[in-house]
Amino acid sequence: MSAPIGVFDSGVGGLTVLRTLAKKLPKESFIYLGDTARLPYGTKSPATIRAYSEQVMNYLVKLGVKAIVIACNSASSQVFETEWRAIPVYNVIEPGARAAVVATKNKRVGVLGTRATIESGVYTRAVRSIDSVVSIFSQACPLFVPLAEEGWSEDPITKVVAERYLQPILQHDIDTLILGCTHYPLLKATIQNVCGKAVVLVESGEVLARALLKDIQSGRITKSAADHGSIRVLKTDLSAHAEALSRAILADFQISAIEKVDLV
Amino acid sequence: MSAPIGVFDSGVGGLTVLRTLAKKLPKESFIYLGDTARLPYGTKSPATIRAYSEQVMNYLVKLGVKAIVIACNSASSQVFETEWRAIPVYNVIEPGARAAVVATKNKRVGVLGTRATIESGVYTRAVRSIDSVVSIFSQACPLFVPLAEEGWSEDPITKVVAERYLQPILQHDIDTLILGCTHYPLLKATIQNVCGKAVVLVESGEVLARALLKDIQSGRITKSAADHGSIRVLKTDLSAHAEALSRAILADFQISAIEKVDLV
Repeated sequence: MSAPIGVFDSGVGGLTVLRTLAKKLPKESFIYLGDTARLPYGTKSPATIRAYSEQVMNYLVKLGVKAIVIACNSASSQVFETEWRAIPVYNVIEPGARAAVVATKNKRVGVLGTRATIESGVYTRAVRSIDSVVSIFSQACPLFVPLAEEGWSEDPITKVVAERYLQPILQHDIDTLILGCTHYPLLKATIQNVCGKAVVLVESGEVLARALLKDIQSGRITKSAADHGSIRVLKTDLSAHAEALSRAILADFQISAIEKVDLV
Repeated sequence: MSAPIGVFDSGVGGLTVLRTLAKKLPKESFIYLGDTARLPYGTKSPATIRAYSEQVMNYLVKLGVKAIVIACNSASSQVFETEWRAIPVYNVIEPGARAAVVATKNKRVGVLGTRATIESGVYTRAVRSIDSVVSIFSQACPLFVPLAEEGWSEDPITKVVAERYLQPILQHDIDTLILGCTHYPLLKATIQNVCGKAVVLVESGEVLARALLKDIQSGRITKSAADHGSIRVLKTDLSAHAEALSRAILADFQISAIEKVDLV
């Protein structure tokens, strides 16, 4: 049996990344760790986000994962290492930035995220380091996570909130928009509707799947020998609503029980 | 110098309680502790909320407070003691429930709160234990906290969200509505607007101030000997946005610096 790939987020949002990875890499097994007792990371200070991320990564290493995917933009904005205790680490920022640079034709890219992600300027720096000519227009969208968690994905209220948030950056004629928070794919239809079809939405899960696939092919990560993988979901705190939401996001996959774990 | 009164919440919401207490008890000094590193409590399990609340109360006792006000409905729903290590404890539920029972004429009361507070059923039990004839209609409002934190207090978006949340309980002809989350007073004007003026809104801060005043008069709490009190704000994590929000809520008061502390 092959070692699993560890995926983590502060909550359930990273499950949108997990479901894309599981779909694109069906032979791999995954351990998902949602640090739900301490969610959200997005409102916390950089030092706290960094400390929590290290605890989660140490925990995943102890569980024997062969790679760590940081399916959380707030954590990704504080963890720049490409290895942690000799295990490959994938953060959502760099692949997202790269995908946006590839997608944009007019060199005008928008970024949506939590307040912490946007204020960190991490996407702006990542995009500019790949192509310094690209102009970036950022917008913090604090209401998107609770809207997604309410299940109001295609609701008129979500549409007016999306219009409020998107209007200032759409005025800048962007042709590409990075969904810089792992909850946002749950609102993708509404966001696309507000942006119009001409704007390409960049989702972390898809670019991470490509990055992992490439490293499996190159041998940086050992390929799974199994016929099909499994998904194990761990959380630092359990609540009925979060469990229902988790099962809804992973509706197309079989998951073993959602287990509670203590990190510290 | 008299000992201060300790007030705590998971975040900045409890500052709406603090500002009411400071206004009504101008001679008293206050220490506010916002457990911002672990906010929000509302999405966490009862056992976790209880454990965090105990840590905060132990910390406040160590600082020498003469009373503890739990300015957080999620914490109040898990802490039923009226004393903690021999210090009087005030939780927001019982006085809120009592004020609603006094206010209602048609014996039909609404309760708004976070998902955890509403699912705990704590207000329903508290109201029924005071007057078993009162009918309670509850509604979880997960978007209200982020709307308040966006500063969209009197925004059309907040109005449509409030209409969505309030419509089901307004249909039951309530004449009294408990704002069962300490952030909600920040949205009071919009909530009152949606309810209409005939509905009495019950705010925790006002009923807590009355409870404290009564116990100061009875001698359960030692009266401050100072001419006017001071306010000290402690948080377990600092962020620029939360600090700006804190200063806005406490705009009418002088506060010393907002300090970061570690509880554990």
